[in-house]
Amino acid sequence: MNIFEQRESDVRTYSRSFPVTFKTARNALLIAENGTAYIDFLAGAGTLNYGHNNPQLKQALLDYITADGITHGLDMFTCAKANFLRALETHILKPRGMQDFVVQFTGPTGTNAVEAAMKIARKKTGRSNIVAFTNGFHGVTQGALAATANSYYRGSVNMPLAGISHMPFDGYLGEGVDSLDYFEKSILDGSSGMDLPAAVLVETIQGEGGLNAASIPWLQRLAALCKAHDILLIVDDIQAGCGRSGRFFSFEEAGIQPDIVTLSKSLSGYGLPFALVLLKRELDCWNPGEHNGTFRGNNHAFITATKAIELFWQDDTFAAGVREKAAFVHKRLQEISKRYGHGATRLKGRGMMQGIEFANGDIASEITSLAFEKGLVIETSGSDGQVVKCLVPLTIEQALLEKGLLILEQCVASVMAKNVKKAV
Amino acid sequence: MNIFEQRESDVRTYSRSFPVTFKTARNALLIAENGTAYIDFLAGAGTLNYGHNNPQLKQALLDYITADGITHGLDMFTCAKANFLRALETHILKPRGMQDFVVQFTGPTGTNAVEAAMKIARKKTGRSNIVAFTNGFHGVTQGALAATANSYYRGSVNMPLAGISHMPFDGYLGEGVDSLDYFEKSILDGSSGMDLPAAVLVETIQGEGGLNAASIPWLQRLAALCKAHDILLIVDDIQAGCGRSGRFFSFEEAGIQPDIVTLSKSLSGYGLPFALVLLKRELDCWNPGEHNGTFRGNNHAFITATKAIELFWQDDTFAAGVREKAAFVHKRLQEISKRYGHGATRLKGRGMMQGIEFANGDIASEITSLAFEKGLVIETSGSDGQVVKCLVPLTIEQALLEKGLLILEQCVASVMAKNVKKAV
Amino acid sequence: MNIFEQRESDVRTYSRSFPVTFKTARNALLIAENGTAYIDFLAGAGTLNYGHNNPQLKQALLDYITADGITHGLDMFTCAKANFLRALETHILKPRGMQDFVVQFTGPTGTNAVEAAMKIARKKTGRSNIVAFTNGFHGVTQGALAATANSYYRGSVNMPLAGISHMPFDGYLGEGVDSLDYFEKSILDGSSGMDLPAAVLVETIQGEGGLNAASIPWLQRLAALCKAHDILLIVDDIQAGCGRSGRFFSFEEAGIQPDIVTLSKSLSGYGLPFALVLLKRELDCWNPGEHNGTFRGNNHAFITATKAIELFWQDDTFAAGVREKAAFVHKRLQEISKRYGHGATRLKGRGMMQGIEFANGDIASEITSLAFEKGLVIETSGSDGQVVKCLVPLTIEQALLEKGLLILEQCVASVMAKNVKKAV
Amino acid sequence: MNIFEQRESDVRTYSRSFPVTFKTARNALLIAENGTAYIDFLAGAGTLNYGHNNPQLKQALLDYITADGITHGLDMFTCAKANFLRALETHILKPRGMQDFVVQFTGPTGTNAVEAAMKIARKKTGRSNIVAFTNGFHGVTQGALAATANSYYRGSVNMPLAGISHMPFDGYLGEGVDSLDYFEKSILDGSSGMDLPAAVLVETIQGEGGLNAASIPWLQRLAALCKAHDILLIVDDIQAGCGRSGRFFSFEEAGIQPDIVTLSKSLSGYGLPFALVLLKRELDCWNPGEHNGTFRGNNHAFITATKAIELFWQDDTFAAGVREKAAFVHKRLQEISKRYGHGATRLKGRGMMQGIEFANGDIASEITSLAFEKGLVIETSGSDGQVVKCLVPLTIEQALLEKGLLILEQCVASVMAKNVKKAV
Repeated sequence: MNIFEQRESDVRTYSRSFPVTFKTARNALLIAENGTAYIDFLAGAGTLNYGHNNPQLKQALLDYITADGITHGLDMFTCAKANFLRALETHILKPRGMQDFVVQFTGPTGTNAVEAAMKIARKKTGRSNIVAFTNGFHGVTQGALAATANSYYRGSVNMPLAGISHMPFDGYLGEGVDSLDYFEKSILDGSSGMDLPAAVLVETIQGEGGLNAASIPWLQRLAALCKAHDILLIVDDIQAGCGRSGRFFSFEEAGIQPDIVTLSKSLSGYGLPFALVLLKRELDCWNPGEHNGTFRGNNHAFITATKAIELFWQDDTFAAGVREKAAFVHKRLQEISKRYGHGATRLKGRGMMQGIEFANGDIASEITSLAFEKGLVIETSGSDGQVVKCLVPLTIEQALLEKGLLILEQCVASVMAKNVKKAV
Repeated sequence: MNIFEQRESDVRTYSRSFPVTFKTARNALLIAENGTAYIDFLAGAGTLNYGHNNPQLKQALLDYITADGITHGLDMFTCAKANFLRALETHILKPRGMQDFVVQFTGPTGTNAVEAAMKIARKKTGRSNIVAFTNGFHGVTQGALAATANSYYRGSVNMPLAGISHMPFDGYLGEGVDSLDYFEKSILDGSSGMDLPAAVLVETIQGEGGLNAASIPWLQRLAALCKAHDILLIVDDIQAGCGRSGRFFSFEEAGIQPDIVTLSKSLSGYGLPFALVLLKRELDCWNPGEHNGTFRGNNHAFITATKAIELFWQDDTFAAGVREKAAFVHKRLQEISKRYGHGATRLKGRGMMQGIEFANGDIASEITSLAFEKGLVIETSGSDGQVVKCLVPLTIEQALLEKGLLILEQCVASVMAKNVKKAV
Repeated sequence: MNIFEQRESDVRTYSRSFPVTFKTARNALLIAENGTAYIDFLAGAGTLNYGHNNPQLKQALLDYITADGITHGLDMFTCAKANFLRALETHILKPRGMQDFVVQFTGPTGTNAVEAAMKIARKKTGRSNIVAFTNGFHGVTQGALAATANSYYRGSVNMPLAGISHMPFDGYLGEGVDSLDYFEKSILDGSSGMDLPAAVLVETIQGEGGLNAASIPWLQRLAALCKAHDILLIVDDIQAGCGRSGRFFSFEEAGIQPDIVTLSKSLSGYGLPFALVLLKRELDCWNPGEHNGTFRGNNHAFITATKAIELFWQDDTFAAGVREKAAFVHKRLQEISKRYGHGATRLKGRGMMQGIEFANGDIASEITSLAFEKGLVIETSGSDGQVVKCLVPLTIEQALLEKGLLILEQCVASVMAKNVKKAV
Repeated sequence: MNIFEQRESDVRTYSRSFPVTFKTARNALLIAENGTAYIDFLAGAGTLNYGHNNPQLKQALLDYITADGITHGLDMFTCAKANFLRALETHILKPRGMQDFVVQFTGPTGTNAVEAAMKIARKKTGRSNIVAFTNGFHGVTQGALAATANSYYRGSVNMPLAGISHMPFDGYLGEGVDSLDYFEKSILDGSSGMDLPAAVLVETIQGEGGLNAASIPWLQRLAALCKAHDILLIVDDIQAGCGRSGRFFSFEEAGIQPDIVTLSKSLSGYGLPFALVLLKRELDCWNPGEHNGTFRGNNHAFITATKAIELFWQDDTFAAGVREKAAFVHKRLQEISKRYGHGATRLKGRGMMQGIEFANGDIASEITSLAFEKGLVIETSGSDGQVVKCLVPLTIEQALLEKGLLILEQCVASVMAKNVKKAV
């Protein structure tokens, strides 16, 4: 029995899919203790958009640590924070017409940012209900968990989770039904059972929920409904943000502007814990410290996040490259998938959040297990784990991307053949 | 208007008390951008027990980063994690008879650890109620917030916070009343309104609540009551743990063993975001990933935490030094306080969590403001902010400790004189 | 200012629509203090299915009171209760294959019966979620109120109402969409946000919600889904039961058997407060007195209810007459409604719960106000009060029924003419 | 198996203690089907303050029914309601300086009145928390149940009951501790965990909770604290009201005036379902029908309640007689109890709500079982059922009262002797 089996709680999860001990990493490669290299199509579940240990970010961090830069300063002013705020303002907010947003540094986890966003929406509007969507994932602390749809996570809290009405996400009611009809009727009809919400909390592309990408018109209608009925729109961009969709924010393509945005995961650029909430200045009715926490504003993360913004977001070059890569991934996934009969597979997602849905989670996990044997770290998502999800570092070298997709192709072929046989 | 005023949410808090921009730090000294040095009696609200940027921890971290050690690996196995678990097992758990505890890495914030602890207690027992105490602080995400007593934090959620019964902490019902009598009666009497709890969640010394230290007999009786009635005992050792009390765990002095312990703040030793839950193996009924999160297990923190354990906790030397320092602080606070009439001041706390309670928060904050002008970073706590709290790095040099206490003494004298005058 | 305006709370409601003081009543006639007679198309909101003060029920009640029969006996055994149980068993339960149901006498209000039904469903299954429907009305005590969809009632509680997922009722998602597709998907998909429910709580015809009648196939599918997924089916038959649908229970026509049924309103037959829950014997896991209350089992109501069962439900004669009356009402409402352009009106309901939906609540309330001036007591329902609802005593004399409908026809004509004019 | 065992739910309770079928009753005598007479020391758990079937109330009811008076009129104006309001105003409210109270007729159960009172307090203040007390009983619908302290009732709801903070009732913290110190501190200290309450909900004498009578100074201090901190005071006078304490309202003796009062049980005077809320006019912010229900305002109850007020409450004669009877009962209970060693028994209660507490529920229930064999209907209360409770009709003939107390005395003697023997 190794130290992990001996001492770590049964709650551990990814280590079950990838049961080796990793030691080092560089961009899209993970190196195990025994020297074996793995191509990383998981990217820390979307945390490593710029790959592992980007050398320029690394150097900035080493310099800062060497110089005894403030590591922990609660939420006090530091030079590192000032530089981050300036970079964010200059390269992210202003070019996107978001100069009226202020930044709240929350505890450095996505769920903490979501909790803060929900609180401020409830405080500002005086309403307690918030609308979230089928298959949405927003974290597992109690406030965020109420919004998370998956009963696997909801169950352990052993309490009814109040304050959320779940509505069907785009596509949930089937082809030809606009699921927002139900939401709109529920607003207009005072007897729908859905109390007028403080806010809508939505992911534009549901990462954990199975790479369900909301259509652009659906997002636009959602934003319009919120505006018309004085409901705040919160985009949870924790997984789809920071470039993964092909733009910095995943909602840019829809031309909408939320009232509140949550960011985390790839925000530090280096895999360091970091999270924030962007909120329109007029919503900023917080009292000092009303939402607090020890690790608000991780200074190491400020350093790497600032450098990441400067490296990747001074203009559209990087994003354009991401969109190209996404197109390539899409083409390859189509090739992989089109060999199988109607209904056997379905392409999911948008940008660099794409994948293939299989008939069930068993098939999908056979594929990812086999892939790991062949040197590819890749995971499933969806309520049944039925979607094989490519969360590739946006900075992956083309050759490695192609190699990873080839492994995937082979594993799909092998597993599908076996399953066809079984069926016969 | 500086960048912070321009762009940071009004929720920012410590920066209001200490309105300078900090740039570097070393052990107990914080250096502002303009070169001014401040003695740090706040220590990141208990996060910097080993001071800022300890050189040995720093070197270990620099080496790890330089070698491209895994920075972010979700909750996969890494060499860094293995080493941390071994150090924790060898130097912390086993010597304290806690070899039957397993470790759950949660999102790297205290509140996330508390949420996990509450969930597992509810899941294991099938009960939903948890007892927390007056003046307790456990975090501000919704589950933990229900346990946090302070209405300042509770208010913003705009929802009733269910699932918690608050009970009076040691001393809350006044001299001569053992507040556990009420708790015991509430258990025995099926008509108390307190549903039989899954767990009791307690800080042995309430940091945010005003440095209320539970007496040893009170803690022992609490543990005995829990055991007798099959209620899990959760010690939230996020602020009082990691040596601050004079021992690694704050409950050691009482000779009790909780069922669940939460740790964070000083756990990384370097101010990096990190949190974990220790739970008895028999309670570990988690399903894989049931409580999840992107930043479970911060590898940088594993490195510094391992080094901190090796440096400070291989034997009792360091802890003995802390207890000596605590005795010195106590003596000095007594000297400072005894000059003022009966009731004007009161000594609070235990170990290196000591302070002086004043008549109200106005006096206390006048003192800390003045102290900052004189180069001392020190904060208040308590429901009215009436307690001036010395959270000094445990590693502070004796000369700096004495200097800081001298500044405090002068500020107290000056403010008390002014207030006496006002009263006249 | 009369005594009511002087002394009664502003919560009073029906007295606002019908601002006269009533003194006596007989079958379908209400007589005001000043002698004016009104035809009653409201029937105590469905409480007076057998009309006011039915002479045979009245005589039985007078005899019982005269003989000093037990009036109040908590839930002790009384002769009156024994007789009621026997009559219910013989004439209602056994002929309908419901011999395995037991009877729980709750506090004598519908909402109390609903609360008991919800509790036992949660207790038996160990689950806390219950599914209720858009536009459903189940009462206004807190448990039942969570299931009631109308925000007008929900608002006053000033707390989030937990433990209920609202689903769209038959027709709510528009023509051609079977709203149960969403419910079924929400069960099958563990990530729908709808926790697996203990029970579904449904009215077959939504009285307060606007006379929405679920189709027979929808009810059958709902029952099948519940059975397939081990979800209890609770039919709230408080308004639609006791013959109003044309059969004793409103679900009989669908050939389904719920697990739990709530009855109240017309159950006593005489307008006396009375309510009960029918539950399958295997669900009867109540501990003694676990759901209690002072007025469980109103003995006066036992007397009149027993007599009502004997008079009306020994065979199908009465019910057949009701169905004939319902057909007549339907024909007349069609005649009244067909004069107006497409979309101006819509027939709603089933059995003797029929009405006409108008474009909005203003038109509907103009009609009912005018009707009252002409001697007809009739009310609106629906989330906007847009449905004029005929809740006629089932025992109404044909002549009076025709007269009432004629008044309604004239009022509709008059108001519609005026509104057309306005529109021009 | 009789019809009750065959057909009634296991939730039935009083019929277990008194397993005979009752047929008729008159004042303090209950007559079983087989002709056996029982003295009634239970009085419908406080519902029959004027005894069973009082002849004058009975005649008024018979006259009303015979004349086809309105039986059911929803909450429309009726002559019966007008007369009741006038009688209440003239003989109850005005003489007690309560002319500024308005009357809300709720569903005719105590729990419904409590739910209405809680809602209006929350709506008016905008706060959600309500303080209730250890051992309080306020009903079992979900809102009221949250306030009810007994876990026996709380358990079946299978949900955390939110929105209530329980505080220790008078005496709960033991001799010499004023339990309101804790309440006051919890108000003043913003970090007590008790959110500032909308209201305090209190019984002056806890009927179900074990006949705990709050002292007059405690009630006065409670009222003063509420007033000082803008907290509404709700007296739940459902069991202790309508004369049982020796005055119409149980709080009169303390000279306090609550903001809201709930009444039910003996309000109709005849055992008919009836309940109301008295609220200060300035609190009456209800919208029409916001708290509704089919049986608000039971007209038969209006008739008997009016007559009861006229018979018993035109002056102090009746109340003075009750106080005399209470003194007699007290004397006799003292005589009964004083024979047993210190601690074996304890007198409980006030007015005509008195009883004897025994060491445990087993002794108490042995006594009441034996009493029933000897022709006395009497029950236990308290969290362990350890209190034998005399809830005698206030109108009981002196001879019957003495006879009943004699039976009680003999049963106590017999059971105590047996238990002493056992102990030896």
